[in-house]
Amino acid sequence: MKTEALINQIRKKQSFLCVGLDTDLEKLPSHLLKEEDPIFEFNKAIIEATQEFCVAYKPNIAFYEAYGIKGWKSLEKTIDYLNTHYPEQFTIADAKRGDIGNTSTRYAKAFFEELNFDSITIAPYMGKDSVEPFLAFKDKHTIILALTSNVGAFDFQTKKVDGQELYKMVLSTSKTYENPQNLMYVVGATKAEYLKDIRKIIPESFLLVPGVGAQGGDLQDVCKFGITENIGLLVNSSRGIIYASSDEHYASSAKEQAKKIQLEMKIELDKLK
Amino acid sequence: MKTEALINQIRKKQSFLCVGLDTDLEKLPSHLLKEEDPIFEFNKAIIEATQEFCVAYKPNIAFYEAYGIKGWKSLEKTIDYLNTHYPEQFTIADAKRGDIGNTSTRYAKAFFEELNFDSITIAPYMGKDSVEPFLAFKDKHTIILALTSNVGAFDFQTKKVDGQELYKMVLSTSKTYENPQNLMYVVGATKAEYLKDIRKIIPESFLLVPGVGAQGGDLQDVCKFGITENIGLLVNSSRGIIYASSDEHYASSAKEQAKKIQLEMKIELDKLK
Repeated sequence: MKTEALINQIRKKQSFLCVGLDTDLEKLPSHLLKEEDPIFEFNKAIIEATQEFCVAYKPNIAFYEAYGIKGWKSLEKTIDYLNTHYPEQFTIADAKRGDIGNTSTRYAKAFFEELNFDSITIAPYMGKDSVEPFLAFKDKHTIILALTSNVGAFDFQTKKVDGQELYKMVLSTSKTYENPQNLMYVVGATKAEYLKDIRKIIPESFLLVPGVGAQGGDLQDVCKFGITENIGLLVNSSRGIIYASSDEHYASSAKEQAKKIQLEMKIELDKLK
Repeated sequence: MKTEALINQIRKKQSFLCVGLDTDLEKLPSHLLKEEDPIFEFNKAIIEATQEFCVAYKPNIAFYEAYGIKGWKSLEKTIDYLNTHYPEQFTIADAKRGDIGNTSTRYAKAFFEELNFDSITIAPYMGKDSVEPFLAFKDKHTIILALTSNVGAFDFQTKKVDGQELYKMVLSTSKTYENPQNLMYVVGATKAEYLKDIRKIIPESFLLVPGVGAQGGDLQDVCKFGITENIGLLVNSSRGIIYASSDEHYASSAKEQAKKIQLEMKIELDKLK
């Protein structure tokens, strides 16, 4: 998907919400467990309920890989369902992969071609030749972990490297890689105040922002420091939406929750006018 | 597998060779392509041919994931074959995963429990709460990327952080994580001279060393700077062994190549006496 198509969709729906499909068998409403593929049935219902209020879906691959071949089948069915019924939705394989050269190309082919995701999350530790193989795919997006929302982010990401924090070096170095137009970045909402500095380095790139809601991040702060003329934000909510209730009304609860966030987002978008 | 069992196996076989199963359909001998599962048939033959000369096998997960569900089946069959027929072999899922908390636990369960690998490779960028979920598994080993063998390693890993290189900070910080006895590290053979400094920080930890052979690293240098009383090294060779020839004699060529490296390793081990 071209970035323009994503921006158009955001303007049309007045939403930059990404719904995280971190689907966990142990948390599913019990009546779904008798289905042949409870994970896919759950995802399908969540997608149907939330799609009018969001512009992106992000399955975290760990939740599927944990169930082996069965999990991969659920993942395939989910991405196929999205691409068939809602091709306007931006799809993110939250895989946090990272390997070298040809091996990275393998991962890129797996997610961009075999599964036909629009984007994938990538760890930057191995540098240039681990990232560029992903960037080589036209109209596919590589979302680099820059500043994550967890406690461990302070172990290395915020440490000073040659006078600037490592995550800033990741941002500026990655801009020198081939095909930087295909780059996006993960920046945790729990560190919204960092967004001011981040926007100095990458004024226009799209940011995938986890951590609003369950992890304590604040939407207004994220927008205050991170929003751009072309919005430049995808704010993710996973648990807060998909597990809004755990009974048979889970889909309508998810819908309500997604709608609530979309309305908050509309207020922020109105401020841009 | 307990570390002691690995050390015993190294002493018994006089080898610390790890064979990388980076099995690529495009590089397989053509007569295998008519098999139902060419990747597994290839792996099985490589394992049979090389197992007496090596102590570990390391499938790079990207090569399997690239083929979707079919690839996962080949991976499952390969690890099951190893665990059934050669349980003394140390198995490494070269997955380079890294996520947070419960999500990391998902990956850990997928590789340590579902697939029953002895170890997994992990990217350190997200810090403590991305690594500790893996370390919590008894007698399972978490192999952190420290200093990799690729060009991109110079982007961030060797940059100075608070006066010391980032990879050294990764080594020293990770030692403070819970269950550090389950840690091992990836250190590329192309940077053997760095091993002297590395051993000052982690004098006894096992190192997984890629880059000998095809990538230009030298076994003697790696041993000179990296070997310990308990050996502390697993030196990996992938392409140099598994693609030693591409005709119907691929298995015996792989055997010859593995044997050759094992003999070089024996010379290094003899120096310890």
